Amino acid sequence: MTVRRRDAEWESLRTARAARLATVDNRGFPSVVPFCFAVLDSTGTDSPCVSEPLIVSVLDEKSKHVPDADLARVRNIQRHPEVGFVIDHYSEDWSALSFVQGKGMARLVAGDDPLHGVALNALRAKYPQYRSMNLTERPVIAISTLQLHSWRANE
Amino acid sequence: MTVRRRDAEWESLRTARAARLATVDNRGFPSVVPFCFAVLDSTGTDSPCVSEPLIVSVLDEKSKHVPDADLARVRNIQRHPEVGFVIDHYSEDWSALSFVQGKGMARLVAGDDPLHGVALNALRAKYPQYRSMNLTERPVIAISTLQLHSWRANE
Repeated sequence: MTVRRRDAEWESLRTARAARLATVDNRGFPSVVPFCFAVLDSTGTDSPCVSEPLIVSVLDEKSKHVPDADLARVRNIQRHPEVGFVIDHYSEDWSALSFVQGKGMARLVAGDDPLHGVALNALRAKYPQYRSMNLTERPVIAISTLQLHSWRANE
Repeated sequence: MTVRRRDAEWESLRTARAARLATVDNRGFPSVVPFCFAVLDSTGTDSPCVSEPLIVSVLDEKSKHVPDADLARVRNIQRHPEVGFVIDHYSEDWSALSFVQGKGMARLVAGDDPLHGVALNALRAKYPQYRSMNLTERPVIAISTLQLHSWRANE
């Protein structure tokens, strides 16, 4: 794994508009949903709340129509913090295919945790859609201990 | 759940060019990868091999560059057949977002199983890219006991 490749994985992660997140349910089935997220860095303006790179996502108003599924995702993480995700873009030219896959430990961050505001700032900087939503009371999911793995068809 | 909605879920599944598949690794982490697949129906030309709807996918030449990751996916399914997947398309207009999520039991289908040929036929009918690949010896993943769940932002 070269430094350049590692940098490219983080760049893919930072710029992707959406990814797919898998949690594990109480029957052992992985449950996969699309999700919007931001990367918090341990350097720069996100510190001192952030001691390692984190992926953050918020259970936003998009999900309010499916309280059960939301609760399921929350319950899954509370019981089983191990999560996985993937960032990819499909193309009919299969020589152009690539993906960045990640694993990490997820936890719920409540509104009174300083990390909650830092996460919302990062999410609003990335997604204009969040700027008009009241997210103060919405749980944030933070994924830490990130391990990335990438694949390219043309390598 | 109306019949129309259920039909729409199956139609999304049949027409999607790619989905994201999650298996569970030996440490309990879900591992998510993009995958190409076809739906086998219990009616029509796929029978008599198919007694219930199945999702089939082949570990094709696309993956030959990452033998470890492939083996991981195969090992995950052999030890932990519970899998999950999602079909979605991201849009910056969040009122247009939707997804179909599924869970099922996965197994590996070897070349000498009649289902292997049926699966390859369906995959080649859907993906011209497969028609020039030699897939006779490549393992097929078949997902059965399918449970679907869908979500739309505008409902």
